[in-house]
Amino acid sequence: MASSKKKETPKAKAKAKAPEMERMEVRLAGSGGQGLILAGLVLAEAAGLHDGRAVAMGQSYGPEARGGASKAEVIIADQDIDYPLATRVDLFLALTQEAADTYSWDLKPGGWIVVDSDLVSHPPSSRAVALPFTATARDKLGKPMVANVVALGAITELTGVVRRKALEKALLARVPKGTEALNKKALAAGTKMAKDHAASGQLAGQEPTSEDV
Amino acid sequence: MASSKKKETPKAKAKAKAPEMERMEVRLAGSGGQGLILAGLVLAEAAGLHDGRAVAMGQSYGPEARGGASKAEVIIADQDIDYPLATRVDLFLALTQEAADTYSWDLKPGGWIVVDSDLVSHPPSSRAVALPFTATARDKLGKPMVANVVALGAITELTGVVRRKALEKALLARVPKGTEALNKKALAAGTKMAKDHAASGQLAGQEPTSEDV
Repeated sequence: MASSKKKETPKAKAKAKAPEMERMEVRLAGSGGQGLILAGLVLAEAAGLHDGRAVAMGQSYGPEARGGASKAEVIIADQDIDYPLATRVDLFLALTQEAADTYSWDLKPGGWIVVDSDLVSHPPSSRAVALPFTATARDKLGKPMVANVVALGAITELTGVVRRKALEKALLARVPKGTEALNKKALAAGTKMAKDHAASGQLAGQEPTSEDV
Repeated sequence: MASSKKKETPKAKAKAKAPEMERMEVRLAGSGGQGLILAGLVLAEAAGLHDGRAVAMGQSYGPEARGGASKAEVIIADQDIDYPLATRVDLFLALTQEAADTYSWDLKPGGWIVVDSDLVSHPPSSRAVALPFTATARDKLGKPMVANVVALGAITELTGVVRRKALEKALLARVPKGTEALNKKALAAGTKMAKDHAASGQLAGQEPTSEDV
């Protein structure tokens, strides 16, 4: 269905105020306590409520998830989503080694792979972008628990999966009252981290949608 | 798969400390602002993290959802879930008329149908249990926004989909700091409402799993 999409769709443009997008599959993986379900919710709501996309989200819990690795998946598209499960992942974020190992078997060739540089010592690919989400949250923001938000800021800046403004709106609608400033700082830290990374020239060949156009 | 399940599975029993359960499909539907995604998360975490079940959850956002009706689906089972989407819904909660109309086409015959008695004037079935979630949240608790929690308390009491204690643990882990007392009250109001309803004798023929045994 997605491949039949025309280059210019005035309706989508007017509605979305965001660049056109083929189906994009995002997987956020880590351990139970890292807040990746919430990160997935925020990403889904940024895309669905603020960028005007169609969005499906799924996550799982239970003995398997509890054992260590857990994941949330978000599928984003300009058209209706006929199959709401991930089939080949365009953007994979892994915040632990176990998550990186467990959930990297169906990544799209040439897709984005982003990992926590301190917690994932063996990324699933040499192309992986490794950034210090947890260390930054802990050392610069004093709150390790916002590593998920730092990561959201970084993947959004790297890939443009949602608009930065949409992400911030969705985030501030979901976080506890009183933590808005902290979360905005975390988002900004992630954005800056990704910008610095891009400026360092390590991004060659990382554009994920090039083979879709 | 689910139908091959034996009556006694010592492993599941030891792990879960909750009654055995065939695959159970729960759909929570309403409008965007009613907090049903959060309710779904809480139910999923109660089942997956505290009752020891396997759980898959899915929800969708976007133009369709924004237009009015939105839904979250939670699939709960004792065994691994091979298909994470709803196929026939065992427990349907609808908090608006539009949601009741839009998402009631694939309900399991004999399954639970629970609606808000003030907001759903035409339930999808005459068997539907109609309870005043929103009115209770607004008039007795002073916070209409906890109607979702009142409803969670009621469907848990009615159906036993998760243990009450598991629900409360999961809820308190997800709600903003400082709102714990309010949310516990909302849960208790929902539980009481369902108990009163059961005592009133309107529950005959409502046991959802009878045809599975």
